[in-house]
Amino acid sequence: MKPFTKSATPPALSSLPSSGLEVRLASRPVGLPTLDHFEIVEAPVPVPAPGQVLVRNLFMSLDPGMLMLIAGRSPLPMPPYAVGEVMYGDAIGEVVASADPSLAEGELVVHRLGWREYAVAEAGAFRRVDKTAYPSPSLHLGFGLVAYVGLMDVAGLRPGDTVFVSSAAGATGSMAGQIARLKGAGRVIGSAGSADKVAYLTGKLGFDAAFDYHDGPVLDRLREAAPDGIDVYFDNVGGEQLRAAVEVMNVHGRIAVCGALNRQSTGRPDEGPGDLLNVLGKRLTIRGFTLWDHLNRAVEFGEQFRNWLREGSIVYDETVIDGLASAPQALLDLVHGRYTGKTVVRLMS
Amino acid sequence: MKPFTKSATPPALSSLPSSGLEVRLASRPVGLPTLDHFEIVEAPVPVPAPGQVLVRNLFMSLDPGMLMLIAGRSPLPMPPYAVGEVMYGDAIGEVVASADPSLAEGELVVHRLGWREYAVAEAGAFRRVDKTAYPSPSLHLGFGLVAYVGLMDVAGLRPGDTVFVSSAAGATGSMAGQIARLKGAGRVIGSAGSADKVAYLTGKLGFDAAFDYHDGPVLDRLREAAPDGIDVYFDNVGGEQLRAAVEVMNVHGRIAVCGALNRQSTGRPDEGPGDLLNVLGKRLTIRGFTLWDHLNRAVEFGEQFRNWLREGSIVYDETVIDGLASAPQALLDLVHGRYTGKTVVRLMS
Repeated sequence: MKPFTKSATPPALSSLPSSGLEVRLASRPVGLPTLDHFEIVEAPVPVPAPGQVLVRNLFMSLDPGMLMLIAGRSPLPMPPYAVGEVMYGDAIGEVVASADPSLAEGELVVHRLGWREYAVAEAGAFRRVDKTAYPSPSLHLGFGLVAYVGLMDVAGLRPGDTVFVSSAAGATGSMAGQIARLKGAGRVIGSAGSADKVAYLTGKLGFDAAFDYHDGPVLDRLREAAPDGIDVYFDNVGGEQLRAAVEVMNVHGRIAVCGALNRQSTGRPDEGPGDLLNVLGKRLTIRGFTLWDHLNRAVEFGEQFRNWLREGSIVYDETVIDGLASAPQALLDLVHGRYTGKTVVRLMS
Repeated sequence: MKPFTKSATPPALSSLPSSGLEVRLASRPVGLPTLDHFEIVEAPVPVPAPGQVLVRNLFMSLDPGMLMLIAGRSPLPMPPYAVGEVMYGDAIGEVVASADPSLAEGELVVHRLGWREYAVAEAGAFRRVDKTAYPSPSLHLGFGLVAYVGLMDVAGLRPGDTVFVSSAAGATGSMAGQIARLKGAGRVIGSAGSADKVAYLTGKLGFDAAFDYHDGPVLDRLREAAPDGIDVYFDNVGGEQLRAAVEVMNVHGRIAVCGALNRQSTGRPDEGPGDLLNVLGKRLTIRGFTLWDHLNRAVEFGEQFRNWLREGSIVYDETVIDGLASAPQALLDLVHGRYTGKTVVRLMS
């Protein structure tokens, strides 16, 4: 075991923050939450006990899946938020005090203790990242890895495939469409919720075709955009878009189910992929996945992603919301499609 | 190329049949067919032209999927039956005249030209099988291979898995449950449509648990039968049973969609696997398949199957219907669950 390299004295108490903001779930909503369901509290920051680390959070991620944790009936492989307790989510911060030899002051760490300005936990809850990897620490919260494993491992992307991505102007979708192109897809089609976003997809992001899912039946729009059918559907939405994709899929098509925005934004159960005979007759594969089963791809993906950024072959757009107190409203706006690209909250600078 | 070993003279015309029965689709039903939608015709049997073979059919298979071909709107990877034309389906017969060097008189062949007493086609339409492999030629029509590839290749059966099979007393389901057990499943659960069939499953076929899907909500029955959840669902049915399976599935569960009896027996579109959040949260895989993508497993499976039969470790039950004229009614009875095990029609002996 590595010796404890810091001095044997505890962190200098005088220099540590005594309190910080955190967001708690005030009550469990029926359907979608409103601001009343969140409570912003100034809470004391404990001194890290032996083995613990105190982290000052710089950015946290906003993610539509958080709505399911708020609703409390999520079948996702994470516990729902408890009423009266502080919420959690992906964040990146800087170690300001460490009582564990594995992490030193000043190191940058990603972790799941967002929705608070200061996080104190066992050192194992934090994962050190390279401070020099990206121009902004917020990029460590990017959803490119989800998109990458969804395309490569779950959907088994093959060169020449026609790929359809829903919610394609969002954090994950914008990565999925671009990574599909970079990995050899023959044609990349995206859907989004506004004309501006459609223009963003075919313009800045280089999608081959895109449509606004409000513009008439999705099935018609998708057939126009994919006259030769689709081979891979990267599904962030479910609902009508999933059913249309199943109709338009080619034989042996593969669907990676990454999100269920349709369910998350309406609060109603999703109707699923529609007529089973399509799944049978076309021998389709529909597979749900979450990042947690695929973290072994993180290093390999990170190298490729940084190369693409350096070359300018991938566009990574962020919406930065300032201050934890703005986060609840930003989460509601995110689910209703207000933002393009990745949405993060800057907690402290 | 092999020399033409038969004499250069054409088959002896006098010894060949001049006519035989065939079943045509008289008209396309709306919903389920009745006997009026079939026409039984005595048709001339052509003399095989060079390169062709004349086969006297011994047995043909009855298969619920035929209803979709009758309905004419099947997305299955086979053409629907044409109105006024003879239907088709799996059959086994004996070569009675050959004008092609690849097949000789007396050989046993499987092919897709059922629903007729005599089949004439290019030699490539017939596949020779080993006359000594089974006690009855009808066993070559068994659905064990479908069950085998569904479990092993599509669902990725692992030792210890809890496996649920719907329509478990049918041709494919009875094989799937037994093969699952023989391949190391920890627990095998079946559903069927009567108390007699349930007793057959847990008795003669050795299922660990079984239930009648008419007995209250399938979800409740499945939870009782699978208190620790299910890992693999071999789906012959869709509908309520699929939705219940998705609810009861364990994380990383796998569903092999082999049939859609619910759709086939009601004529109504299937509602699919239900709430997408289960697929996402539990990272389920739902995969449709047909035998045609997996024929490369036929030899390997045949060897195992014959061993299991010899050892007495697998039960293979057949219902034999006599005469082609009885086949339309038998098909309707099959879809309504009248038969147990594999159903074949004996065309000629």
